[in-house]
Amino acid sequence: MSINFKELANKYETPYYVYDFDYITSKYNELKGAFKARKSLVAYAVKANSNLSVIKHLASLGAGADCVSIGEVKRALKVGIAPYKIIFSGVGKIDSEIKEALTLGILMINVESDAELNRVEQIAKELDVVARISVRVNPNIDPQTHPYISTGLHENKFGVDIDTAKRMYIQCKNSQHLEPTGVHLHIGSQLTELQPIKESVKIVADLVKNLAAIKIELSFFDVGGGLGIVYDDEKLIDTNEYAQSILECLFGLDITVICEPGRFLVGNSGVFVTKVLYEKVNGNKRFVIVDGAMNDLLRPSLYNAYHKVEVLNDNQEFSECNLVGPVCESGDFFAKDVKLPKTQHNDLVAIYSAGAYCFTMASNYNTRGKVAEIAYENNKHRLIRKRESFEDIIALEEEYIK
Amino acid sequence: MSINFKELANKYETPYYVYDFDYITSKYNELKGAFKARKSLVAYAVKANSNLSVIKHLASLGAGADCVSIGEVKRALKVGIAPYKIIFSGVGKIDSEIKEALTLGILMINVESDAELNRVEQIAKELDVVARISVRVNPNIDPQTHPYISTGLHENKFGVDIDTAKRMYIQCKNSQHLEPTGVHLHIGSQLTELQPIKESVKIVADLVKNLAAIKIELSFFDVGGGLGIVYDDEKLIDTNEYAQSILECLFGLDITVICEPGRFLVGNSGVFVTKVLYEKVNGNKRFVIVDGAMNDLLRPSLYNAYHKVEVLNDNQEFSECNLVGPVCESGDFFAKDVKLPKTQHNDLVAIYSAGAYCFTMASNYNTRGKVAEIAYENNKHRLIRKRESFEDIIALEEEYIK
Ligand SMILES: Cc1ncc(COP(=O)(O)O)c(C=O)c1O
Ligand SMILES: Cc1ncc(COP(=O)(O)O)c(C=O)c1O
Repeated sequence: MSINFKELANKYETPYYVYDFDYITSKYNELKGAFKARKSLVAYAVKANSNLSVIKHLASLGAGADCVSIGEVKRALKVGIAPYKIIFSGVGKIDSEIKEALTLGILMINVESDAELNRVEQIAKELDVVARISVRVNPNIDPQTHPYISTGLHENKFGVDIDTAKRMYIQCKNSQHLEPTGVHLHIGSQLTELQPIKESVKIVADLVKNLAAIKIELSFFDVGGGLGIVYDDEKLIDTNEYAQSILECLFGLDITVICEPGRFLVGNSGVFVTKVLYEKVNGNKRFVIVDGAMNDLLRPSLYNAYHKVEVLNDNQEFSECNLVGPVCESGDFFAKDVKLPKTQHNDLVAIYSAGAYCFTMASNYNTRGKVAEIAYENNKHRLIRKRESFEDIIALEEEYIK
Repeated sequence: MSINFKELANKYETPYYVYDFDYITSKYNELKGAFKARKSLVAYAVKANSNLSVIKHLASLGAGADCVSIGEVKRALKVGIAPYKIIFSGVGKIDSEIKEALTLGILMINVESDAELNRVEQIAKELDVVARISVRVNPNIDPQTHPYISTGLHENKFGVDIDTAKRMYIQCKNSQHLEPTGVHLHIGSQLTELQPIKESVKIVADLVKNLAAIKIELSFFDVGGGLGIVYDDEKLIDTNEYAQSILECLFGLDITVICEPGRFLVGNSGVFVTKVLYEKVNGNKRFVIVDGAMNDLLRPSLYNAYHKVEVLNDNQEFSECNLVGPVCESGDFFAKDVKLPKTQHNDLVAIYSAGAYCFTMASNYNTRGKVAEIAYENNKHRLIRKRESFEDIIALEEEYIK
């Protein structure tokens, strides 16, 4: 990346997020290319980075959208993604969301429980429409990732087991208001092992074959997202091998492959840039305090996630420290026990791999406004989200003071 | 509490937060009363619950404000708290924040490092004003609470040790632009043991006496916040004993006591109310899925914090389950392995002790709008923050789509 962080800091102030759109393009093409032997749809998992300009950029490349709320569906539509490329997933859909999704005529609703299927059927009936259904199957395979982002085992809330899925498809087939359209799995995020994916796809492909035998023909096989990225020194799944092993499992099935990556497409495109306020030493511990905080980037506090950090100065005096923000919580940190050079007031610090699940989890904790987001494309930068002002933060409560 | 949650759900929809303002009044009076033997200021820690109407309510009772960002200072001023009752704390103050705080003439700036004191001095000089300074002392006492909210030990980022503090006061005394005004400590949050508080106050009181001996006379002794509340079955510190033991340590000193409670004043005033969407069973595990999620109330995901939950129906068939939200993360839960009755679509669920550090940490993750906040006072309810709409969420990025 050849982004001039300093120039951006001068123009947009700190902290900020910057995303390399050219990098996103290359990752999209890499994945889409790997599936070229088949009809395929790359449905971007909007939750990873929901900025409208990011979605629009992916849309312009041909991406669809995997959405987990009606808000995400609206984001996708807003930037011009066609309804037939939009999937609505998630374990807890609200009645009004189901109603709106059905009215908008999106590709399909990913259903995650018996009870939800009944709600969708009921609502489709009320609207007198046919709901295109995909069932999320929980293949009960350990994805070997962080427990917080592992989703493919039975003891979590996601999906249904094979037998339940089968029953649900039969219910679809027998209903005037449901149409069995796809099947869905997603075993976890930040996956770095191919084997669990293969096994899972195999299990679900067998289900699809069994369904075909009883005349339930599905059109879409959604393998979920989850491809890992480099935060530290992870060895990643090869994209071509990934696609190949999926296509092998689907051999003989006339079905369109969907994948719904989030992190893979945008994670390494993003950098969070923050500024040094002070250094201090407490006891034997050195602290570098920056103007960004956990409210801007929660992953270290929430998952104890590792992000590579770099001080953008020329100092060579390295020593161990904690890189922390101004929020009044011990949990407000970006890196612990990391070797960083001596810093000066206003030195910039880059926090890498910050394109996915970073800005999207930002809050206004400590009445800190959400930071600016910047796109970098073709050697040019532009603002894609304005820094939030005090007035923005209080806008929805101001009129009620009395 | 006699709040009719159902009535509120009908009027304002779910999920919502409701705060019992009469309860806040009683907690304020309890604490203020306990300090009646002395000049005292209860400076509400705005970060706990920053809603303008909540701050206004406390202001009307006489409270000041403990703020950790210029945004919080502005909130306090907005609802009419006098500058001389406002303190600006926090480990990382941005230059522009310091400048604004000095211009606004608040009571004092709580300084947390050498380097920060130098910045404040520099800026005060540029503005040609005198900055009233309090130094946050880290007494190095273990508060016996959750590591994420413990702040009184040396190996964390907060405050300075006694010797550094002393040097800083001498720097203040010798500076034309700094005035040694107060001293500050805060050893942690959700404290349930009096002993560590006593020990800490004693240590800092000794510092104040030593300073007096070298003609540095402080006017304010800020004991911080941290008084615990009931989430589960905690045995709490008695408010009168708390005040008594502080006043004993200060015997012989002509100094105004400040305390800056957050959780104590508002924590148990609040309830988060959400609605059942579905039940499902995966493997052997029962899940109750509600329309609220980790983006609305993060404490269980972030700290594994316990909140008492209650299903508001008459069903007596209890069994174990996980109470979870719709967000696509295994970490999205409110309670694990908790016995709840059988539920129906649209049953309400109350999540208690949700007045502090709950709404303030809310995000828009999964493009979920922040929920409504409601005040309950004198048997009447009123909206104090409007539910965030899709348009609100995208407001700062919409114009940049291209
Ligand atoms: C159903 C589903 N699909 C796709 C994704 C995207 O995952 P990732 O960003 O790891 O590709 C998620 C993430 O939680 C998900 O739950
Ligand atoms: C300096 C300071 N004062 C006061 C508080 C309020 O703490 P509590 O809500 O536990 O009273 C905090 C909380 O983090 C704090 O850091």
